[in-house]
Amino acid sequence: MTLLDQYATTRALTEQICAALEKEDYVVQPVADVSPPKWHLGHTTWFFETFMLIPYATAYQPFNVDYNYVFNSYYETIGARVIRTDRGNLSRPTVDDVYKYRAYVDKGMAHLITCGLSEEVKKIFDLGINHEQQHQELLWYDIKYILGHNPLFPAYGSSTIEGGLTAVQKDWISIPEGIYEIGYSGTDFHFDNELGRHKVYVNETSVATELVTNGEYKDFISAGGYSNFNYWHAEGWDWVRTNVIKAPLYWHEIDGIWMNYGLAGLEPVRDHQPVSHISFYEAWAYAQWSGHRLPTEFEWEAASDNISWGKLWEWTESAYLPYPGFSKVPGAIGEYNGKFMVNQKVLRGASVATSPNHSRNTYRNFFHPHLRWMYSGLRLAK
Amino acid sequence: MTLLDQYATTRALTEQICAALEKEDYVVQPVADVSPPKWHLGHTTWFFETFMLIPYATAYQPFNVDYNYVFNSYYETIGARVIRTDRGNLSRPTVDDVYKYRAYVDKGMAHLITCGLSEEVKKIFDLGINHEQQHQELLWYDIKYILGHNPLFPAYGSSTIEGGLTAVQKDWISIPEGIYEIGYSGTDFHFDNELGRHKVYVNETSVATELVTNGEYKDFISAGGYSNFNYWHAEGWDWVRTNVIKAPLYWHEIDGIWMNYGLAGLEPVRDHQPVSHISFYEAWAYAQWSGHRLPTEFEWEAASDNISWGKLWEWTESAYLPYPGFSKVPGAIGEYNGKFMVNQKVLRGASVATSPNHSRNTYRNFFHPHLRWMYSGLRLAK
Amino acid sequence: MTLLDQYATTRALTEQICAALEKEDYVVQPVADVSPPKWHLGHTTWFFETFMLIPYATAYQPFNVDYNYVFNSYYETIGARVIRTDRGNLSRPTVDDVYKYRAYVDKGMAHLITCGLSEEVKKIFDLGINHEQQHQELLWYDIKYILGHNPLFPAYGSSTIEGGLTAVQKDWISIPEGIYEIGYSGTDFHFDNELGRHKVYVNETSVATELVTNGEYKDFISAGGYSNFNYWHAEGWDWVRTNVIKAPLYWHEIDGIWMNYGLAGLEPVRDHQPVSHISFYEAWAYAQWSGHRLPTEFEWEAASDNISWGKLWEWTESAYLPYPGFSKVPGAIGEYNGKFMVNQKVLRGASVATSPNHSRNTYRNFFHPHLRWMYSGLRLAK
Amino acid sequence: MTLLDQYATTRALTEQICAALEKEDYVVQPVADVSPPKWHLGHTTWFFETFMLIPYATAYQPFNVDYNYVFNSYYETIGARVIRTDRGNLSRPTVDDVYKYRAYVDKGMAHLITCGLSEEVKKIFDLGINHEQQHQELLWYDIKYILGHNPLFPAYGSSTIEGGLTAVQKDWISIPEGIYEIGYSGTDFHFDNELGRHKVYVNETSVATELVTNGEYKDFISAGGYSNFNYWHAEGWDWVRTNVIKAPLYWHEIDGIWMNYGLAGLEPVRDHQPVSHISFYEAWAYAQWSGHRLPTEFEWEAASDNISWGKLWEWTESAYLPYPGFSKVPGAIGEYNGKFMVNQKVLRGASVATSPNHSRNTYRNFFHPHLRWMYSGLRLAK
Repeated sequence: MTLLDQYATTRALTEQICAALEKEDYVVQPVADVSPPKWHLGHTTWFFETFMLIPYATAYQPFNVDYNYVFNSYYETIGARVIRTDRGNLSRPTVDDVYKYRAYVDKGMAHLITCGLSEEVKKIFDLGINHEQQHQELLWYDIKYILGHNPLFPAYGSSTIEGGLTAVQKDWISIPEGIYEIGYSGTDFHFDNELGRHKVYVNETSVATELVTNGEYKDFISAGGYSNFNYWHAEGWDWVRTNVIKAPLYWHEIDGIWMNYGLAGLEPVRDHQPVSHISFYEAWAYAQWSGHRLPTEFEWEAASDNISWGKLWEWTESAYLPYPGFSKVPGAIGEYNGKFMVNQKVLRGASVATSPNHSRNTYRNFFHPHLRWMYSGLRLAK
Repeated sequence: MTLLDQYATTRALTEQICAALEKEDYVVQPVADVSPPKWHLGHTTWFFETFMLIPYATAYQPFNVDYNYVFNSYYETIGARVIRTDRGNLSRPTVDDVYKYRAYVDKGMAHLITCGLSEEVKKIFDLGINHEQQHQELLWYDIKYILGHNPLFPAYGSSTIEGGLTAVQKDWISIPEGIYEIGYSGTDFHFDNELGRHKVYVNETSVATELVTNGEYKDFISAGGYSNFNYWHAEGWDWVRTNVIKAPLYWHEIDGIWMNYGLAGLEPVRDHQPVSHISFYEAWAYAQWSGHRLPTEFEWEAASDNISWGKLWEWTESAYLPYPGFSKVPGAIGEYNGKFMVNQKVLRGASVATSPNHSRNTYRNFFHPHLRWMYSGLRLAK
Repeated sequence: MTLLDQYATTRALTEQICAALEKEDYVVQPVADVSPPKWHLGHTTWFFETFMLIPYATAYQPFNVDYNYVFNSYYETIGARVIRTDRGNLSRPTVDDVYKYRAYVDKGMAHLITCGLSEEVKKIFDLGINHEQQHQELLWYDIKYILGHNPLFPAYGSSTIEGGLTAVQKDWISIPEGIYEIGYSGTDFHFDNELGRHKVYVNETSVATELVTNGEYKDFISAGGYSNFNYWHAEGWDWVRTNVIKAPLYWHEIDGIWMNYGLAGLEPVRDHQPVSHISFYEAWAYAQWSGHRLPTEFEWEAASDNISWGKLWEWTESAYLPYPGFSKVPGAIGEYNGKFMVNQKVLRGASVATSPNHSRNTYRNFFHPHLRWMYSGLRLAK
Repeated sequence: MTLLDQYATTRALTEQICAALEKEDYVVQPVADVSPPKWHLGHTTWFFETFMLIPYATAYQPFNVDYNYVFNSYYETIGARVIRTDRGNLSRPTVDDVYKYRAYVDKGMAHLITCGLSEEVKKIFDLGINHEQQHQELLWYDIKYILGHNPLFPAYGSSTIEGGLTAVQKDWISIPEGIYEIGYSGTDFHFDNELGRHKVYVNETSVATELVTNGEYKDFISAGGYSNFNYWHAEGWDWVRTNVIKAPLYWHEIDGIWMNYGLAGLEPVRDHQPVSHISFYEAWAYAQWSGHRLPTEFEWEAASDNISWGKLWEWTESAYLPYPGFSKVPGAIGEYNGKFMVNQKVLRGASVATSPNHSRNTYRNFFHPHLRWMYSGLRLAK
């Protein structure tokens, strides 16, 4: 695939994810962690404009200089920005304006790509593509949250990515004790947090071949899992009580039956599917209750050739920390990963919402332990 | 004007106020006090549906039973509702849905009106009209807030209600000491809080014939009015410091010049216009600084024949309290006014955004003392 | 009584109120509105030092210049101060230090008084005495709160001011319609907020001769008074739900019996005593439920010759606002009353904790509507 | 040393730390993380009473059954308790009561110890001793915070533990790449979180032999370290801005000179001493600025034979996580460590406030990354 094709395909997919939305769905931000879809559309465009067109496309004129303030996410180097919790307060630029912005930047990018990219600029291009793919995944999370928290429970559509959520018979596979090489070693695209490849000593471990299912998780609920502090971290227990948590995010108990909001609307929970939209605290509590534990990210990576690729991001016990020798790139791009390496947990694998070429067994996703609006699930170790 | 004409005119004006908006402008709620315009459109419609069509139009079928949850404002009697701060989180019903809802209810109302209204139902009809007119005024406040707090400062339009903000030479008129009759006494529409008419003893007072202007208010700012606690209530001073208040709501000091966001966009402050969008705390502090005071609502009403009708709501010193003999109507309609009679201040007069037939000299508007997103101004007494 | 006797008596009473305390009881501040007793002891002393000794006793040396920062309450004119919510974080100065401070200032005051006070200084002296008497009352509130919110429920003592809480048969007395003179007119001590005396037109009203009793209030609770929004202001209803209020402040339902923490410890609620420690919201809700209302402060003053003097401060419907012609004294003393005239309610009468010479029928006490740690009660009007 | 001597020595030391306090100092809680000294005195006593005397001393009668509610820290198994932020609101039990409680429990313990302890009970005894030693260290932190945040800056005393804070010439020592055994392996007392000993692969690393000094840290401040986001985690940068952090906890810039509150009072910062009372965010930012990094806890343990024992707890890059095979003890004692293993950072070493027999090179201390009221410092790695 040519670079131009790669660019066009990626950009088109983002818009395709949004095609089923009403204009109003693009605007709202029901909680701080969810961004309005129109913000994602603008921000991914701003990324290409700011890091490629403005520095490298000589004749390029910015679409609107005020957009830098609106669509910068967290790059302190680039200047002031709308605070995160205010994204949903902006009715302007309109959805149509944002699509015009996309078209304008796409034209500029097509010209720049056609003229040829140096090795250095090619690296930023790859990052821009991967960045947009990450936001495609976030779009799925955020759209689901917006629709799934509306009192009318509107469906997104009938045939969606959630069709990929299936599960088969679980088994255990064993990892022999010894030294494992962890981290990325190839020449394809990867993030800085996957470097550098290094040796880790792993003890003998067994890891489940499949994820925990909704049916199994129902047993945890029925056994009083949410009302017994013994299964929880102290902070997890506070979180459960403060937020009156009783089940995974999109579950509603209606007339004694557990219903789940999926992209196709409100339906009974399907027992054989992997349980999803759970926090680290819940994953850990389930593991405690069942007499197991969560794998570390090293165990996970060591076992990765012999387990089914999940369709959910899998919580690990590992904190999100730098690998030995980690150093961030100078400049704004260096703000991509390193500055988040505290108080977050590593998730491994990939989800039904993940772009296929993000599925590396060295990929390190990360979220705060209380979050669960992403497609997150749970694999046991012992 | 027939009832049907009256109904159609009122409903059309609401939609006309919104005609200049983009769809996105209908959806957002930048602060708790501001409601999304589409919520106002739906809520005023819900009012007619809930209090007229459902109880009195026998064959009427509700448009969508879930809308009760979405569009109820604060009527505890009617049931659960979206919490106020969540109004801006709802992308559905869409703007088009809400306009369909309006058309559906309008059809039902036309039928009901044509069949004739009993005396009792006529009273609810009048309340519904006046209620919608109040929301027309709120729409102006909220639209201005939404556009005026957007970093792009989009204009609403060039020829707007704000053209009505002019001021002439100020003078003082004197009110003789004595007993005055206060409150509504006629047979036209009025709110329950204007009843019952009663005697109030008023001391000799002078009231300014005009409102305080932007130019005069600039002097207060230049004299350090916002940094000297002596002019402020203790709570007002806390408010100033906590919120870092330095000027009226829509004022921005840019390169040493005071700019004002108006519906026509960002422009220099016009000295001769009455100062607007100020809190009670600011009005009171200005009065202290200038060696005057605010009138009570009784003084205001006593003087009302001899002062220019303001184009802004005017803060008074009076707390919003029941008149002697006040009693609320039974049922949900009784929640209209009485339950707010604590911790609020009375404003008298009317603003450029007020429906003409709301302009009674007995009309009692009320807001919390820190609010200023409405068209509020200041008249002095001594 | 000579001025010196008056001074000595007042100061001794303050210390006598504290005599039953443990040292630890002097230090804590369980909520923002409650001040540590040692702070009251120091603050009343600081008042005499700051407003009398430093300006008028020429040879006087301040006890400790840092105490100004510690014991200033809210006088912005006098300089920076410990923020109110930090008073309970200060272990120093110790209780012994504060008593030394009192003795030191008392010696200075004795000398100043013996040398003779000018008319101007005599006025400040009177204010200082009345100020300390107000803090004696606050000491009762705060001591009760500190002990009554300790899980061990320690008693203050067996024979206390609460012995004064009795009630007799209730009746109604009628106030004829007409003009009443309201406000202070004599030459004894009074606060600036009682001036100036002015005419108020009052409608015909009936006022209860006695306060509502615990027994009557129990009926309100049994009838679901705390769970029916119809009886409450909107803000009152929020307050009830947010704070899970189910009864007056010191009531505890234990094994189905209403117990009350009094200064003598935890005992069953006595039905014939007036209900106390209720907020304005509760007083108003009770009145709504019983089909009555609260008197205004003008009705109260007009009826004051013919009603039993209560032993509790009585909530009125009136907001705390300036009387006509109110103007504050220049300088720090002017911060005494005027700057609190917003968002508060007037209470009339006096309580068992009030100094006898505070009991004027023109005395205007004031508190925010949600507060109830003071000795507050309820009289009905209709 | 006999068990009885060990018990008596430990208990006496706790009281000796408090001997210099005024009664008032025992009572206050200026922030949530700080507990009143009298609470520590009671809680350590409650620990012995609850986990040794009540279950194992057959004739023992609890001193006061209500004390369980007052002095339980966080053991959910044991029942309800005063919420942490309310500890400073309790004036009772008094300081004298708490000392009586200590004497009563000491008598019971002496009897129990004299009668002989089974192997199982001996383990709880060891835990109780180590638990009290941990609280001795917390007492130092909390006493310093209480006095150091008082506007009078009272000194604790002139000759204190802080005399141990010295520093010598810094050097680097190298750790060869390879497999290291990490965790406790002996038979003396240790905590469950130091088990089980396991292999970790460590890359070649250099670790500083000494801690970063105040003088070096001043350079970081002068170079704008607190105003350049590039050195900080995103969460650290938020913390700096929200709390307006400009220097270590007890530093005050007075007339251009950096002063430090130490137990001896306010004195100029001593350049040659190790910088202390810094958060993880600050330690990490300093390392970033200086071109180094923090060691992991594994590197630290591997280097521990060749570095000076610090006199401060040293922040590591490692998150506080379970070692392989970690499992918590059944029952309340199992709540000791495991449930805190999320969102905290490991600190290694020991401080001047640490009990000597806590100084194991496998000891894992842990705090949230924003905390800094403990004696925390910083060692560099590269």
